[in-house]
This record gives sequence, C-alpha cells and structure tokens, in this order.
Amino acid sequence: MTARPHDLRLALFEPDLAPNFGAMLRLAACFGAAVDVIEPCGFPLDDRRIRRTGMDYLAHVRWRRHADFAAFERWRRAEGRRLVALSRHAARPHHRFAFAADDVLLLGRESAGLPAPVRAVADVVLTIPMRPGLRSLNVVTAAAIVLAEALRQLGVLDDWIPRDHGDGGPQGPRP
Amino acid sequence: MTARPHDLRLALFEPDLAPNFGAMLRLAACFGAAVDVIEPCGFPLDDRRIRRTGMDYLAHVRWRRHADFAAFERWRRAEGRRLVALSRHAARPHHRFAFAADDVLLLGRESAGLPAPVRAVADVVLTIPMRPGLRSLNVVTAAAIVLAEALRQLGVLDDWIPRDHGDGGPQGPRP
Repeated sequence: MTARPHDLRLALFEPDLAPNFGAMLRLAACFGAAVDVIEPCGFPLDDRRIRRTGMDYLAHVRWRRHADFAAFERWRRAEGRRLVALSRHAARPHHRFAFAADDVLLLGRESAGLPAPVRAVADVVLTIPMRPGLRSLNVVTAAAIVLAEALRQLGVLDDWIPRDHGDGGPQGPRP
Repeated sequence: MTARPHDLRLALFEPDLAPNFGAMLRLAACFGAAVDVIEPCGFPLDDRRIRRTGMDYLAHVRWRRHADFAAFERWRRAEGRRLVALSRHAARPHHRFAFAADDVLLLGRESAGLPAPVRAVADVVLTIPMRPGLRSLNVVTAAAIVLAEALRQLGVLDDWIPRDHGDGGPQGPRP
C-alpha cells in the first residue's frame, strides 16, 4: 500500500506537561506528522515521563527543537508553510477550513493556550466548535481532532484504509 | 443559539485507567455526549484521580453505570440504539461510516481494547486509519476523533460555530 504523502506538522508552543508531550508524540507517530518543539519547555526534554508515554513511538517521529518562537518563525517562513493556530479564542471552525498538506498546526500550552501575540502572527486561527459554556478540550485531544480532519480532507485516511485484516466481514466497495 | 439536538453516547468497556476516565468525561462534556460505564472498572468510581482530570466537567456530563456488559446490552437493545464499536482489529474506516444521532460509540480498555466476543455483538466495528505498523492511538484520543467526525457529519459542529467572539476578523459567509 502506497500512502499519499503528507507533510503536516504539529508545533507545540512551550509545552508545559511531560505526559501531554508524550501523548503528542504518540499521536504524531500514528498519523505520520513531524513535531516542532518551541522551547522553553516546562520539563526536561529527556524526562522519563515523556519516555513512559511516548517511548514506543519516539523512533517513529521526526521532531525538531526551536530555541524560541522567533527562531521557529524564521524556520517556518523560510519553509514557506502556513501557520494554522488552534485556540478557543477564535471564531473560525476547524472543520470548515481547507487544510493544505504542508500546514503547520500550532498548539498552545495546556494551562494557558497561545498568547495573543503568537495568535496574531498565525495565518489563521481555528477553533473546535463545542457546547457553549464549556471551557476547553485537552490540548492533545484538540490536536487529534484537527489533525484527523486535515488528513480526512487531504485523502490520507483513505489511503490508510486497511485491506488485509478485520473482523467485520466483506466491506463492499468504498463509497 | 439553538444547537441541533444529538444523543450520541460514549460507552466505556471496563475502563482500566482513572486518568483516561477523567479525560473521557471532559471530552463528553465538551461535546454533550452522555457516558455509559460498563463495570467492573479498574479503579473506584469516586477515585480522586478522576476528580482531578474530570472534576470541572462532571456536573456537565450525564452518565450511567451498568453492572456488566450483559446489563449494558439489555439496556442498549431496549433503547433501540446501534452499537458502534471502535477497534484496531477492524477494516471499516470511521470516516466513511454514516453515523446516526443516537449511536452508542463503544470504546475498549487502554491496555487491551475490546474482547472479540464484545466486538462480535456490535452492529459495526470501525477503525481509525493510521500509518501501517504503528500500534494504536490512546483510547481517549481515538474517542475524540470518532466523536468529532460523527458531530461533523450530523451538522452539530455547524450549529456550535461561535458567532460572538474571535480574533480572526470578519469570517465571511459560511461555506
């Protein structure tokens, strides 16, 4: 099976919780996204808690460290990629946005989200619509929902449909 | 804003990790899904670790306990709802399945997934397509992706699009 190539990236702005970081690595591995870590982190990057939650997956993730947001931005602009930020302080719903295969999805800190000046330099700021009055999803959960929607739109999920196993009997033609 | 009603439920088969359970409650609260807990659990249901991760959200979640899978199944069949199981042992991709507004999404244990006899009684077993060779997503991450896809298909996300805040300027007409 030859999967359609994609070059989506998850950029983590000053991540504050090691278990979340490990979970992000696992998510990125399963979906083939590279990871940008925008430092400083709230934990040592060799923390054993990362290894506990993300260890099995580390070998499958390409990741890059950036000393700070300015350094990340220099790299990102040189690459010519769009910066697609995720924030609950936004009105544009993620599922109505047309993703590109080389978008960089920017995720904030679990504790504080993305600062306004960082949101201001993004090409677009998306939100995940949810019930009014609720605070927010966990940042890994939010990243998963948006990354999966991008992969769905780009046809990557279609290319990953398994054909060689399953317990559901004949599946019939794909719609 | 009047949101389209939906009656999707997350059914958790013998959940084994309290932090995951708390995260499931948070996910369910944000998306307005009720939760079915199929016991036994691997932790006391009043565990402080649940409260730590899910406490803010508990007041916003309707949840029901079922003594075991047989009791859950009696209840579910009496309700006339479809049982939509999620498993990596499946071939049918979640994003090509047409969800109904009263589907029950069945999630397995983080450590072991769903037993084959449980999968066998589901109306359908779905999988989230991912890179070949990778083990699996975290169960909360997987639940979030599938629940969000169901809400997208059903038009619920459209009804939750925020109109009264945002930092992205005028959004233009919805597509």
